[in-house]
Amino acid sequence: MKVQNYRQVVCKEEAPGATMRIVAGPEDGAPNFVMRVFEVQPQSSTPYHSHNWEHEVFVLSGSGVVRHAQAETQLSEGDVVLVALNEQHSFINTGEGIFRFICVIPLVDGKLPSMPPAG
Amino acid sequence: MKVQNYRQVVCKEEAPGATMRIVAGPEDGAPNFVMRVFEVQPQSSTPYHSHNWEHEVFVLSGSGVVRHAQAETQLSEGDVVLVALNEQHSFINTGEGIFRFICVIPLVDGKLPSMPPAG
Repeated sequence: MKVQNYRQVVCKEEAPGATMRIVAGPEDGAPNFVMRVFEVQPQSSTPYHSHNWEHEVFVLSGSGVVRHAQAETQLSEGDVVLVALNEQHSFINTGEGIFRFICVIPLVDGKLPSMPPAG
Repeated sequence: MKVQNYRQVVCKEEAPGATMRIVAGPEDGAPNFVMRVFEVQPQSSTPYHSHNWEHEVFVLSGSGVVRHAQAETQLSEGDVVLVALNEQHSFINTGEGIFRFICVIPLVDGKLPSMPPAG
């Protein structure tokens, strides 16, 4: 069993104004999926992209939208988003505080999946 | 893409004083893992048990402990617990408010895993 506060975990920049922490992953012994915590600053966002794995997202605090092919959907505390495989998406902070959410992804062959090269 | 607030999801009693909501699961199209939200009332707990799948837990609010073979570990907002396969565990509310946490589990053959019969 491993217990830690997410704030103790080193964060890395995923995009300008958006950081990510891996709070439960292969290095902790997680065998199947990876829990990450994102913090997006006001007017910042995660990249608009797609990939062949899903997201399960839980909004912890702040407010924003998830942009997708159909439109944008408002998000606030307690909202859950299931992003399907190959579905375009971006999480955008439209509020004044930090937009904070959990995002769980699967492991692929026991490893973190990697984005296909651009181009 | 599916978006819903966890409070909109029907909850069921998992143990006396402990409810569970499946906020992203097979019925929503989740292919690999299941996100649940637990709410445990003061002085209540989830069962002390083990099973051959892992948990990734994120504490949303309240305070409690996770009981395990070694001892009990205090938990509060932002704490993350990785419970390994076959590790005994129980989540106990030791505070005065609701002890609320996310718990993610894997799907097994595309279905929710079921507890082995007691015996």
